[in-house]
Amino acid sequence: MKIGRLNHVGVATPDVEAAAKGYADLYGATDATPAKAFPKLGVKVIFVSVPNMQIELIEPLGEDSPIHKFLEKNPKGGQHHMCFEVPDIIEARDAMRARGATVLGTGEPYIGAHGVPVIFVHPKDTGGVLVELMQEPGGGH
Amino acid sequence: MKIGRLNHVGVATPDVEAAAKGYADLYGATDATPAKAFPKLGVKVIFVSVPNMQIELIEPLGEDSPIHKFLEKNPKGGQHHMCFEVPDIIEARDAMRARGATVLGTGEPYIGAHGVPVIFVHPKDTGGVLVELMQEPGGGH
Repeated sequence: MKIGRLNHVGVATPDVEAAAKGYADLYGATDATPAKAFPKLGVKVIFVSVPNMQIELIEPLGEDSPIHKFLEKNPKGGQHHMCFEVPDIIEARDAMRARGATVLGTGEPYIGAHGVPVIFVHPKDTGGVLVELMQEPGGGH
Repeated sequence: MKIGRLNHVGVATPDVEAAAKGYADLYGATDATPAKAFPKLGVKVIFVSVPNMQIELIEPLGEDSPIHKFLEKNPKGGQHHMCFEVPDIIEARDAMRARGATVLGTGEPYIGAHGVPVIFVHPKDTGGVLVELMQEPGGGH
């Protein structure tokens, strides 16, 4: 198993609309989706596209949002994770475990904000970076 | 001025060799440069390439390293900045100022670890993300 392209960088922030406005007004990165709520995932998301990847702006939604803790530690927001594409999420999950990585939660892939199955891997082996693996669109499962 | 592709994500970490080994052994990301010291920049760097960008692993070098403070706050390391390419760094710098962004330091571009001129922009308008702008190789200055 070898990771493919970086799909996106996840940025946790208290206000996705304000952040998207910053990327548009200051950096000319105007190619952005409308804000969309994912109540089951506990987040509200805007994707800002640059030519080779996306910036996933993530705002907490509800009491149990998985990014509350990050925003408590970083109240102004910041880079939260990096997401790489893999051809097959189950094979990737199994390979990660066989290689000694710590897959978070149950390890059962679930459907993320992009509509494809994802897992998250503990940051301890990657210089402190929380890694998301995402099955590339059109993949095997 | 409109930013181009994401060139790299900067990851500050206490040990670039250990982190590079994690990306190689766990994720199959074996395309990495040898560690290189940049005494003037106060960092030691390894670039790990994935198909569409690089991960810039950064370890502090010397007492005055610009990433000491980040690692004090995040002792295990973490994502430090995102770097986007621009055609002309002077035009980009002037556009950033005209649009009300806060260019860090003197605002005079300096040669970064990639050998091209760069500036850094304050994270307050981009969801907490410290932004580096890098003149794309072959650009105007």
